[in-house]
Parts: sequence; structure tokens; C-alpha cells
Amino acid sequence: MNRETITLPLGVNSYDIVLEPCCLGQAGDLLNLNRKVLVVTDSGVPASYADSVAAASLAAEVVCIPQGEASKNFDHFRMLLSRMLAFGMGRGDCVVAVGGGVVGDMSGFAAACYMRGIDFYNIPTTVLSQVDSSIGGKTAIDLDGIKNVVGAFYQPRRVLIDPTTLSTLSRRQISNGLAEAVKMALCFDQEAFARFESLDYEAELALLASGRPSPALIRIISDALHTKRDVVEKDEKEQGLRRVLNFGHTLGHGIESVNVKNGMLHGECVALGMLPMCSDAVRERLLPVLAKLGLPTTCDSDPDQVMQAVVHDKKKFGGKIRSILVDAVGTFTEKELTPEELRQRYTGFFLS
Amino acid sequence: MNRETITLPLGVNSYDIVLEPCCLGQAGDLLNLNRKVLVVTDSGVPASYADSVAAASLAAEVVCIPQGEASKNFDHFRMLLSRMLAFGMGRGDCVVAVGGGVVGDMSGFAAACYMRGIDFYNIPTTVLSQVDSSIGGKTAIDLDGIKNVVGAFYQPRRVLIDPTTLSTLSRRQISNGLAEAVKMALCFDQEAFARFESLDYEAELALLASGRPSPALIRIISDALHTKRDVVEKDEKEQGLRRVLNFGHTLGHGIESVNVKNGMLHGECVALGMLPMCSDAVRERLLPVLAKLGLPTTCDSDPDQVMQAVVHDKKKFGGKIRSILVDAVGTFTEKELTPEELRQRYTGFFLS
Repeated sequence: MNRETITLPLGVNSYDIVLEPCCLGQAGDLLNLNRKVLVVTDSGVPASYADSVAAASLAAEVVCIPQGEASKNFDHFRMLLSRMLAFGMGRGDCVVAVGGGVVGDMSGFAAACYMRGIDFYNIPTTVLSQVDSSIGGKTAIDLDGIKNVVGAFYQPRRVLIDPTTLSTLSRRQISNGLAEAVKMALCFDQEAFARFESLDYEAELALLASGRPSPALIRIISDALHTKRDVVEKDEKEQGLRRVLNFGHTLGHGIESVNVKNGMLHGECVALGMLPMCSDAVRERLLPVLAKLGLPTTCDSDPDQVMQAVVHDKKKFGGKIRSILVDAVGTFTEKELTPEELRQRYTGFFLS
Repeated sequence: MNRETITLPLGVNSYDIVLEPCCLGQAGDLLNLNRKVLVVTDSGVPASYADSVAAASLAAEVVCIPQGEASKNFDHFRMLLSRMLAFGMGRGDCVVAVGGGVVGDMSGFAAACYMRGIDFYNIPTTVLSQVDSSIGGKTAIDLDGIKNVVGAFYQPRRVLIDPTTLSTLSRRQISNGLAEAVKMALCFDQEAFARFESLDYEAELALLASGRPSPALIRIISDALHTKRDVVEKDEKEQGLRRVLNFGHTLGHGIESVNVKNGMLHGECVALGMLPMCSDAVRERLLPVLAKLGLPTTCDSDPDQVMQAVVHDKKKFGGKIRSILVDAVGTFTEKELTPEELRQRYTGFFLS
């Protein structure tokens, strides 16, 4: 078996991440489903995934929410809790998320709040959630147009990462998720970044499409998980180091807010958000990687609108904005920039 | 100054409980209000209390919810979070509860969830919340008719207990709260129970009504806080010992559910719920204490209805119901009773 188990050592909240092709089919062995199980998935995920988890459970209900960020709202959160209550779930029962970040964030938050916390398992099925959002216990919903503003730090009991679930994703969705893996490599892991540089993306996509696991993509996921594990272990509740994972996200969120109607994806905006925050030398290496992945490298959004969204973002701190800069691959610095300095970086790179 | 400070040692979640007449007026010194502050109160609390906290804050908004358990709902919870967002509160800002258990439970839960947790202070103004619910970090709202089923363990940063706020309460509300203090004395503290036996309740109520602090009531609050501190310290997340604080609550909740329309209060139902769970010797001492406090000692609710509500309660465990029994004052035993055994205790005491 090609199983890699990565342990997140967080005291009583410690848990394992199991990375293995086809581990979704072993959920009955790898998770404790010998109880009432609420399986939460979304309409973009093959129904057979959630059904297989339900079939391995003592008693299960499957809840399917509409695909997309708009579902991560208060009404769905309340609905999940009502369903758990109607299903008669007790403190000893559990929730299993099968899907991307929206499903994981929202059902994790519901598990955190139901009877003040019941067991939660996460089976992420997108690149974005496999390399990033399923790890670290950040759960949340959106409110009044602000992303992730209501939530909890709540660790899952176990995470199953099955790279074969990526075979049904579009190329664009895969690239979107890889942007977060590029981010982690840029800040923490120069060898992982070098593997991106030598990646034959087309060949790996072809492998994946044929239903076989892609060793290079599995290695990318593994690299990202190790980085994320190290960061979360040192800073479970985002009081310091973990903010580094916001590299590219300050401008990225601003770009995302402005382009919400254009259908730009989160990772695409993060890719754009990283570019003005690198040294010239790093950017010279980053641009071909983003291009190979089909991620955008140009942006003509109005700087006033972008900056308005950035300043409204929750990561503002006093008058300045804590920003992560990468001057050399595998390292980072943290600096408080004025909105004007940030704006100059944006316009200087994209609009000059 | 007659200040008593009781520290709850919970590692990074440690905090102080300040018990002192008139400490509400010192909120500006005792709490860090040099930031944005959401003050949450209810329509039954004198408005001057919340206003004085707001006046001591750098910037404050006061939210007043209708008095009563019905307010502890999802809609109000969401409203609080929206207000925090509209007020532009960030991770460094805080929530202050000024009121009873409903206000404290709900605003504590909102503070726990806003941006995954911001500082929370509690200023309980009822006996029930001063002796019990403000301590220990259990926050919650009700959903679909089930009490406290959605919530978080989230400790306040500090609790201010001002016994002079009790002067505006009715005698019935005071007795209602004292039922929980009697419960703690019965299970853990025979000296505190003896103080209840020698209490001149009428004299202390007269003192309180005249606007002076009642030394005997302050001692009762202090006794209860010490007991609760010891229990919570040993079992922050209610995985064992803390369940003892449910003494009287299993049958009590059942009686409460059946009598919701009669307007019976929580503490009154807990008083009734304790009686069938004591030995004869303990009951002989408990009955006159409850009578002196004006708490009920007889109940003619239909046992089928009571047991139906009990079995629906979240504390059911398998087919049996974990129950706390008091065979000697100041001690307890934990026993799993069948619903039939519990029913026999109820009918045996109240209906034979």
C-alpha cells in the first residue's frame, strides 16, 4: 500500500492525515463509523463518494448542499444542525465531510457547535482542500458578504486524502488548488518549489484522467501537507506563524472581491496576489510555474476597488496591513505595509 | 474593599472571577474596555447597568434582547454577529454580557464564533448566573425546542460578580437561583449546606431590598463559586466530574418541559428534581431548606410525560440514564438508572 500517514501533534486534539490512493473506499476501516453519521457533501461531488461512506456507517444520513461558496451561509449551517437534531444524534456521534472547502468548513463548524462539539472527519475531494483547507481546524461560514467571519478552531479526528478523487475535476479546478501548494512551497520549501519547476503537468493530468494516481501530484500534496502540519503544530490558533499562510491572500482577497462576478477562482486570485509580493528574482521563477499551471499572471482590476476590498478585509491591523513578502524561495518576511505601499506594489506590477 | 478574587486555573484559558459589591461600577478598571465593545443585555435588566459599561468603553454598542429563554435562539445569535460585523469589530475587540444566563450563554457563544473567537467578559446580574451559569465557559443557544444544543466551551476573560445587582430581583427569582447553590452544597460542601440551614432568609432579603449587600448571600455565592471552580478546573469540557453538576437536572428538566406553560422556573424544577435522588436522611434536611427559600417541594406532573421528556434529554446514555445520587450531605454517587427506576423514584416520592 502506498499509504502515508502524517500526524498533527496537537495534544488532546492530535490527529492523523491519511494520504493514500483509494482510501475513500476504506472509510469504514479508517474511521469510527459504528454510530450515527451525518455525511455532508455537495452537488458537484460524485454522489457515490458520500454514499460509500454512508454504506460503511452503522446509521447514516446524507446531506447534499448546492456546490459553491454561496452555500457556506447561516441558513445551511442551521439546517445541518437541525438535521443532526432530527436524526437524534448524541455526543458520541459524528459528522463526515466529503467534498471541497465549502463542505469541510461548514460541516466542521456544525460539528464544533452541535452539543458543544462532536467528532468530525474530513474527506477532502478537491486539490484546494487536500493541500490546504482540510488541515488545521479552521472551520467557518460567511456572513453578510464577509468570508469566514463566523467559525471555530476545531480539529478533525482524522482526515482521509484520496488523490484518485481528483480525476473528476476539471483542469482549471486542479490548477486552482495547486496555487495554494505553490504558495506553501514559495514560503517554506525550496525543494518542493523546484519540483513544481520540473513538473510535467500535462503528463500528470493525463495519468489522472486515465484513472491512475499521479505520483507527482501525490508528492505535491504530501509536500504541502508537511508544510501545513509544521505551521499548524507551531501555531494552532493563528496567533503568529500561521499568518504566513496568508501569503498572496491580502491582495488576492481584494482581487477576488472585485472579480466575484467574473467567476475567478480563489486560487487564481491567490496566484495573482503573490506576484506583487515577491522579489524580482523570485517572480522570475514564479511566473513560468504559474503559466505552466494555467494560472493567471496578469490583472487589470481597478486598484481603487481592489484596495477598498483589502482594507475592509479582516486582516487589517490598525492603519497598516500585515503582509508577507518572499524575497528568496523557501523563506518569507512579515512586514506592515500602509495601504498606499500595497497599492503601489499592485499597480507597479500589474498596471505599469 | 470587600473584594474576593477567585482564579480559575485553565492554562491559557485561565481567568479571574471578581466578587465584590458595586464592582459593576468599576468595569472600566477591571476589564480592558479600551477598544470596540459590544454590550449585550436584556429588557429585564436595569438599562443603567449596560449603559455604565458602555460609558467606560472606548467605543461601544449596546444590544438589548427581550427577557426570557425564548430569546436564546438562532435569530438573535445571528443578529448579534451581524451587529458585530456592522460595528466593524476586529479580532482585538470584545463582548460584554450584562444580565442573566440567557444573555451570558448567547453572547458568549457569539464571542466564541466571531472571527473564531474574540474576548468575552461576563457580568452576571441574577443569582442563577452569579452562582452557576457565568462560570465554566458553557455557552449555547437553543434550537428546535431543545435547550443548549448548539454552543461552545469558551471561557470568559474575566467575570465580575456584583451582589448589589440582586436588589432589583424578585424574591422568587432569588430563590430560583439559590436552588443551584443548594445543589452544589449538597454534592460537595457540607459546611455550605449547614449555612443554608442556619440562614435567616427574610433578614437577608430585607438587607438586600434596602440596597445594602447581604453578607450571608455573598457567602453563599462565594461558596458556590469555589465549588464550581474546583469542578471546572478538573473537568473543563464535561467529560466526567462536571456531570455531577447535573444533580437534580435529569428529572428537573423533565418536570420543566412538562410545566413550561405554567411558568415554573428552572431552579424550582431543579429543587423538585433533587428530592427523589436523595437518601431519606438527606431529604429530611433538604426539605426545610427548600421550604425556607420558598422553593416547591411537591409536584403532581404526569409521570409518563415527565419520563418522555427525560428520555428525550441529551443526557440519556444507551438505554440507561446517568444519574447523580446524594446519600450523605457533601457527597455524591453516580449511577446508571433505567428509565423505569427513575420513574419509580419520581412516583415514589411525589405521587404515593
